[in-house]
Amino acid sequence: MYQQSLQLKARSRGFHLITTEVIQALPQLNQIRVGMCQVFIQHTSASLTINENADPTVRKDFEMYFSKAVPENDPDYLHDDEGADDMPAHLKAAMLGSSVMIPILNGRLALGMWQGIYLCEHRNYGGTRNLIITAWG
Amino acid sequence: MYQQSLQLKARSRGFHLITTEVIQALPQLNQIRVGMCQVFIQHTSASLTINENADPTVRKDFEMYFSKAVPENDPDYLHDDEGADDMPAHLKAAMLGSSVMIPILNGRLALGMWQGIYLCEHRNYGGTRNLIITAWG
Amino acid sequence: MYQQSLQLKARSRGFHLITTEVIQALPQLNQIRVGMCQVFIQHTSASLTINENADPTVRKDFEMYFSKAVPENDPDYLHDDEGADDMPAHLKAAMLGSSVMIPILNGRLALGMWQGIYLCEHRNYGGTRNLIITAWG
Repeated sequence: MYQQSLQLKARSRGFHLITTEVIQALPQLNQIRVGMCQVFIQHTSASLTINENADPTVRKDFEMYFSKAVPENDPDYLHDDEGADDMPAHLKAAMLGSSVMIPILNGRLALGMWQGIYLCEHRNYGGTRNLIITAWG
Repeated sequence: MYQQSLQLKARSRGFHLITTEVIQALPQLNQIRVGMCQVFIQHTSASLTINENADPTVRKDFEMYFSKAVPENDPDYLHDDEGADDMPAHLKAAMLGSSVMIPILNGRLALGMWQGIYLCEHRNYGGTRNLIITAWG
Repeated sequence: MYQQSLQLKARSRGFHLITTEVIQALPQLNQIRVGMCQVFIQHTSASLTINENADPTVRKDFEMYFSKAVPENDPDYLHDDEGADDMPAHLKAAMLGSSVMIPILNGRLALGMWQGIYLCEHRNYGGTRNLIITAWG
């Protein structure tokens, strides 16, 4: 069982492809013939998901959609001390999830042709983000 | 660690129970006393979730709800080359997730009495869908 | 591989921190240096997620938001025999998910400083809820 932490640099609010960074952080992946890899984010206002890895407009549409679906400044929010983007960030993080799990086959992540790992940064200024990558097989 | 790919036949847009197909695809499940099973979908416009396994109207209501919550033809979408159902499919897939994880107990998936595995087909004509089933214990 | 079931007492509709209960239910956690823990809920109208562990207003805002985003009494629901809170509970459960997966490092769950495990009770009277906790490493 291999485990590695990875600190991602601060990114702008939005959805960002991090597949290559994740793979490079755990070189032992290529020693696993059949296995599993989990990527976990240690935060509650950023999240991880798997989606389309090619067209950058998909990631822009993700940001547009989730910012409409989880509005800022709802007068019903009670938790608003840290700014208008804070409570929506917690809600989006729960909807998208704090981890992704990907099978390993022949030393590689068995992602489909169009799948990539997204960091979903829900804060305006989220800062660096810590991941823990664990693989076994 | 057992791993098996499974190609699901093309299904109509909507939510479909696939529990039996998943179990039949990995007969080694019944050799695992205590373990874990992951089912992963290698696509970005279909997804997997666990929900009610008995009343077909639940699955119809899932399709109704998610199609309202993630509308087609939002003029703000930038990614629309593949049709009105394309970008909503990516968003729904992220909300529901690309994998499910189920504990194994005494050679069986430890699902609750009312739980089944859903294939969530978000495209009008999604075609066949590839799963990877991995179990260990 | 350690596995333990845990019956949670009935809780009110809303979001509840259960991190301590989960950890106490599996004392073998502290024997695992590098590993993984999954918590699975055997129900389709309650769910699990990871989010902010400090300010109780965050959990109140979760209940407020999800009850707005998944309305009761939509006349388009077909599945409504069990009351107005039933079909919304299934939908919320799918959006939030039936399991959480947390890495283990040095005998402890490697949660971020602000992360806790939530039981998301979507029914008005959901009753007790069964979890299965599995850890390995």
